[in-house]
Amino acid sequence: MDWALLRSDATYDVIKIIDGRFFRLDDHLARLRRGSERLRMEIAESWPEVRSILAECVERSALETCVAYAIIARGVPPLGMDRDPRRARNRLYAMAVPVPWIIRPDDEDRSLAVSIGCKRRINPVSVDPTIKNFHWMDFVVSLLDAYDHGADTTILLDCDGNVTEGPGFNVFALKGDVLVTPDRGVLEGITRKTVMEIARELAIECCEVTVSTDDLRRASEIIGTSTAGGILPIGSLDGVMVGDGRPGRLTRVIRAKYTEWQHSPKYTVAASEAVGPRSEY
Amino acid sequence: MDWALLRSDATYDVIKIIDGRFFRLDDHLARLRRGSERLRMEIAESWPEVRSILAECVERSALETCVAYAIIARGVPPLGMDRDPRRARNRLYAMAVPVPWIIRPDDEDRSLAVSIGCKRRINPVSVDPTIKNFHWMDFVVSLLDAYDHGADTTILLDCDGNVTEGPGFNVFALKGDVLVTPDRGVLEGITRKTVMEIARELAIECCEVTVSTDDLRRASEIIGTSTAGGILPIGSLDGVMVGDGRPGRLTRVIRAKYTEWQHSPKYTVAASEAVGPRSEY
Repeated sequence: MDWALLRSDATYDVIKIIDGRFFRLDDHLARLRRGSERLRMEIAESWPEVRSILAECVERSALETCVAYAIIARGVPPLGMDRDPRRARNRLYAMAVPVPWIIRPDDEDRSLAVSIGCKRRINPVSVDPTIKNFHWMDFVVSLLDAYDHGADTTILLDCDGNVTEGPGFNVFALKGDVLVTPDRGVLEGITRKTVMEIARELAIECCEVTVSTDDLRRASEIIGTSTAGGILPIGSLDGVMVGDGRPGRLTRVIRAKYTEWQHSPKYTVAASEAVGPRSEY
Repeated sequence: MDWALLRSDATYDVIKIIDGRFFRLDDHLARLRRGSERLRMEIAESWPEVRSILAECVERSALETCVAYAIIARGVPPLGMDRDPRRARNRLYAMAVPVPWIIRPDDEDRSLAVSIGCKRRINPVSVDPTIKNFHWMDFVVSLLDAYDHGADTTILLDCDGNVTEGPGFNVFALKGDVLVTPDRGVLEGITRKTVMEIARELAIECCEVTVSTDDLRRASEIIGTSTAGGILPIGSLDGVMVGDGRPGRLTRVIRAKYTEWQHSPKYTVAASEAVGPRSEY
C-alpha cells in the first residue's frame, strides 16, 4: 500500500561499491537528500544514519562489489486520509544487491547497439528528472521495442526531438573535438559529473548543450554513463555503426581514468568506515 | 525488487464493491487485460481466476463496501539478466481495502475546491494513459501545491494547456447544454464511460472533445468522476466559484442515476457469484 508503489511516489539513489568501497557516496546522498526535500519527504533517520544503514547492508550482503539502493518512499497515509500524502510517514528502504551489469567489466571490446526510443522521455514540466525517480514506462516500452530491432538498449528523445538519456544512463557524444551531453530533461548523473571532471583533467572540452539526433548520428564516439554500468561504449545507433563500431579512443581513455578514480581514496570510502555517525549532513 | 516498484512497470485496476456487489467488474477486467497486453505482460492466472481471486479478497475482507485492487506487475528478472524485462515472471497482486472516500456518500451538498496543477499531465507520447498506471508524480506534486492554495484537489493541463484529468478522476464540464470531457491524454475511466451512458439515457448531449481552460472556467457545472469517489461535484476552480459553488442541478441528476445503476443487477455481480470459473475471458 506504500505510495512508492501505488503512486510511484518515491525518490531513490544507487551507489556502486567496488572492492568494499563506496564510490562518491556523499554525492549520491546529497542528491537523494535534494530529491526528498523537493518531494517534501522527511524520514525518521538522520543522514548519517542513512549512510550507516547502507554500509551495514553492504557488510551484511558479504558482497565485495555490489550496488546499494536507498529508496525514500512516501509511505501509507492512515485510513480515512487515504488521499493526503502529507499524512503519510515517509520511509527508508535500503538494500545491497549484486551489480546489474550491462557490459561485464572484463569485456573491454564490447559496445552496445542502441535504438532511438519509440517513446519520448517524460517531460520535465510533468516530472522533474533531477529528482531521481521510478517513472520508467517510457524507457521500458522503448526497451522492448529496441529488443525487437535487435538492439541492446535505447536512448530517448524529448518532445522537441532532442536527445535525453537511456534507461539508467546519461549520454555523451564526441562532436569534432568536443564532448557534448544534454543540458536538460535528464538525471544529473554522478557518473555524468565524473566524466565531465575527467574531461577537465584531460583538457578535453566538454559542454552541456542541446544535443540533436543529428549530433548523435554524426558523432565519432558515443558513451553511456551509469553508476551500475560505468562507462558504456555505444557501437551502433539504429543499426548504423558509430566509428568502427568498437569502443573509441577517447571512450577507452575516459574508461581507464574512471576505473582509476573508482579505486582512489579521494572518491571512495570503505563500507567499514561508513558505518557509524558522521557530521557532514 | 519487483519492477512494479523499481520501474513503476505495472498496470492495475480498482473496482468498487457496494453492498457486496462488484460494479462493472468485467469492464475493469477488460481494461486491465488490454493494459497488460500492451505492456506485454502475461500472468500465470487465467482471467476467470483473476475474477475469482478478487471476489475471494472481498469475501475475506468482510467489507460490504470496499474497493478491490488488481495489479499486474513485471516481477523480477533473474540475476544476471537484471535489465531485461522479458525475463521476468509477471505477477498478480490483489487486495480489498476500505474505500478511500473523497466525499462521504452522505455528504450530498459537499463540493470540491480544485486548483489547476502546477505540473502538466505526463504526455501520451511518453506514457500511454489508457494503460492505467502508477506514474503519478505530476499529480502528487500538483496536489501538494493545491493544498498550499487551500484546494482539496487538482486538475492537470496537458503540454498544450488543455484540460486532462485529476489524481484518480476524469473531468466533465457543462458548456451551455452540452457536457464535454477531454478526448485524449486521459484514462478511459469506467465512471467516465458510465456518465456518458447516463447522459445518453437522459438525452443530454455529451461529447469527447478538446477542453480548454476557458471551457472549464466558464462551465456552469464541473464534475469529477472516479471509481472510488463516484460523482464528485467541483465547486470552485482556483478560488473562483463554479455556479453557486454547490453541486449543480445536472450533477445531482447524474449522481442519482449513477447511484441507481450501482445497485442494478444489470451492472453488478455479487462477490459470492464472482467466485469460481467463468468462461467469458
